[in-house]
Amino acid sequence: MTARSPSPLAGALDASIPLAAGLFDEIGRRTADTAGVSREPYSPAEQVAVDILTRTARSLELEIAGDPFGNCYFTLPGRERGLPGWLVGSHVDSVPGGGNFDGLAGVVAGMTALAALRRAGSAPACDITVMGIRAEELSSWYGGHHGGHIGSRAALGLLPAAELDSAANSRTGRTLREQMRAAGFDPTAVGRGTPHLLPGKFRGYVELHIEQGPVLADQRIPVGIVTAIRGAARARSCRCLGAYTHSGAVPHEYRSDAVMATVELVRELDLQWERARAAGADLVLTVGMLFTDGRVHALTKVPGETNFCLDIRSQSEATLGDMATLAGCLAQDIGARRRVRFDLGSFSLQSPATMDAGLRSQLLDGARVLGIPHIDIPSGAGHDAQDFVQAGFPAAMIFVRNTHGSHNPDEAMDITDFALGTRLLTWLLAQG
Amino acid sequence: MTARSPSPLAGALDASIPLAAGLFDEIGRRTADTAGVSREPYSPAEQVAVDILTRTARSLELEIAGDPFGNCYFTLPGRERGLPGWLVGSHVDSVPGGGNFDGLAGVVAGMTALAALRRAGSAPACDITVMGIRAEELSSWYGGHHGGHIGSRAALGLLPAAELDSAANSRTGRTLREQMRAAGFDPTAVGRGTPHLLPGKFRGYVELHIEQGPVLADQRIPVGIVTAIRGAARARSCRCLGAYTHSGAVPHEYRSDAVMATVELVRELDLQWERARAAGADLVLTVGMLFTDGRVHALTKVPGETNFCLDIRSQSEATLGDMATLAGCLAQDIGARRRVRFDLGSFSLQSPATMDAGLRSQLLDGARVLGIPHIDIPSGAGHDAQDFVQAGFPAAMIFVRNTHGSHNPDEAMDITDFALGTRLLTWLLAQG
Repeated sequence: MTARSPSPLAGALDASIPLAAGLFDEIGRRTADTAGVSREPYSPAEQVAVDILTRTARSLELEIAGDPFGNCYFTLPGRERGLPGWLVGSHVDSVPGGGNFDGLAGVVAGMTALAALRRAGSAPACDITVMGIRAEELSSWYGGHHGGHIGSRAALGLLPAAELDSAANSRTGRTLREQMRAAGFDPTAVGRGTPHLLPGKFRGYVELHIEQGPVLADQRIPVGIVTAIRGAARARSCRCLGAYTHSGAVPHEYRSDAVMATVELVRELDLQWERARAAGADLVLTVGMLFTDGRVHALTKVPGETNFCLDIRSQSEATLGDMATLAGCLAQDIGARRRVRFDLGSFSLQSPATMDAGLRSQLLDGARVLGIPHIDIPSGAGHDAQDFVQAGFPAAMIFVRNTHGSHNPDEAMDITDFALGTRLLTWLLAQG
Repeated sequence: MTARSPSPLAGALDASIPLAAGLFDEIGRRTADTAGVSREPYSPAEQVAVDILTRTARSLELEIAGDPFGNCYFTLPGRERGLPGWLVGSHVDSVPGGGNFDGLAGVVAGMTALAALRRAGSAPACDITVMGIRAEELSSWYGGHHGGHIGSRAALGLLPAAELDSAANSRTGRTLREQMRAAGFDPTAVGRGTPHLLPGKFRGYVELHIEQGPVLADQRIPVGIVTAIRGAARARSCRCLGAYTHSGAVPHEYRSDAVMATVELVRELDLQWERARAAGADLVLTVGMLFTDGRVHALTKVPGETNFCLDIRSQSEATLGDMATLAGCLAQDIGARRRVRFDLGSFSLQSPATMDAGLRSQLLDGARVLGIPHIDIPSGAGHDAQDFVQAGFPAAMIFVRNTHGSHNPDEAMDITDFALGTRLLTWLLAQG
């Protein structure tokens, strides 16, 4: 615990909320698209957001820095500058026609916390740095075939240089390397030398983010304390190959029916989801695409082919592996029994990112101390925080209630919920 | 039993098989397409087939007649012309790029039977008329949206005049009315006055046809005696409407997942098929089309919509009704439980056409007497025979073994199998 009592800080935070509201308003207005906001990675609109944040940092007399990848850093110096400091961040970019809060809320929360600490008057125990991260949403601008999380991965030394050239912007055709250079940054620094951010230099990484699902709103709880960012096992291009035949003339025992085989496979995975959930496991299963071939399928033809995909997510790496294995076994068994051949392709694996137990416990304490209604919640979507976990940072995330999902103009976060989430963040940072 | 012993007739039939082979060869050659044959309804190619058959009828000194719809009738007069006679038929047209035997085999079998009876020397007890039917395959030339079976339905008074104008030829854009008139026939006679063919005037309708499925070939049996032509309950345009959401952020309990709901529905129907078959019921179930929306579906989106179709077939009208009802109940139950809405549309019902028990029993006797290996077999595909059943004719069908299915250039019927089927047909006709 710091010497500072929570009450003056709480007052200082309340007094800083108009600054947050002003930032949301100005950045939202100046990066507005025909619907929602569009802050394209390494675009003038993304730069507008960074410029407005930088102006605010200047007015708060924070230390201002950057890195070769365009990320910006605003630091409130601590009493002991040699101690590992806090890193508070999220991303400043958005999806095309997205909402104003996805990403930006975390950066504004950090700035608001620093404003409150400044206003409360005394320096924190250690440095606190707010990081405005670039290009988290890159994949939505690059045809979905790119990993995204560019700013965080580049700064952490996790971005392979090959990704700078491996995909093109859907609109301009430019590679990420070209786009980054055109914005005035240095793609040649990617993957070169020591990472810009090293875990030993930081106390931890904390990210506030709107919840992108409906759980907090449905449960009427303003704040979620994230347990882990789910990992994923994904098979993008699964096929089932059977044989087209006449649906009238060919009895079932002679068929190689790709739809019935695929339906059995997906239904068995769905039933396994039910069993796993009943047993308390964390598991999400989605078949977002499933289709017969529109060029040849017909009402009176036994379908000879399906294409589909599998998106399996869990906080447990073992559960991901078990489900991928089960899918393979079912494909084998059903294929043999139904005279079809499944080709599930390979599963791309993304490990779950578990939030730091110590930081989570501190946040739970803080929420209790501050009387903020809260629940534990997993994150189904990916966030910059997962890259910090991968790089060895203790990380924590605070979710703020939000309706209508995210990545669309209708996302809606109440500023009062934002204030509660930011109060919890500020409380944590003030612990030193 | 007739006074005629089977042996001289058998010899006469064997001697008439070259006539059949010649008809198959000449009609196949003169209606050949780049692949297979194309005898389009009311086209010059269809007329070529009718002309060749007519020339053969003339050489056999048969009575030759027609009707306003282009069907041709070749009659071997019986000893008592006032008695109800036999009608032996099938269709002379084909699908585009189809096989030579689908349809034509039944007409050629009838001509071969008449040739054998002529050759055997004595007149049959009653008239035997071979009918070459027009335009059975019309739907395959009219974009699949037409009932087909034009010649038989028109002659039986079952064709609504509206169908003459309700669809257009996929290639020429002409309506059936225009096409029929251009071929020199009289569409205004459709649905007008007394049907050309009345059940009281005939002893029965008999149709020989290649099997379009693999059952006879697989079981190494040359001849099938058809039990019934399966009826169908078909829903062409089923939909499941859920809601698109983020597959990462939205837990299952908040989803309206159209794929998982559809998969459960189809799997339950498939399990009901298994139970029905285990209980000895006749049931075929096909979901030939099933697809998410290619414009919006994605790997990481909970799917908000599926489109699919149901093709349920059975020899039992009750089973058809039960399955359609079950589909509706499942849609209701799964829809409520999974927060989606199914719209199955309306089921179009086609009644099963049961073959006449007396004629079937006679055919079974004949096959035993003649030593022809045979099995009972349902017809999954539709045939002109079903229209005769609907009009009140006693009807029978003989299937002849055929490999590679039908409606494609690879259909393959051995002339020896054709001879066995035709021997059985001739035996039946000779019973009087």
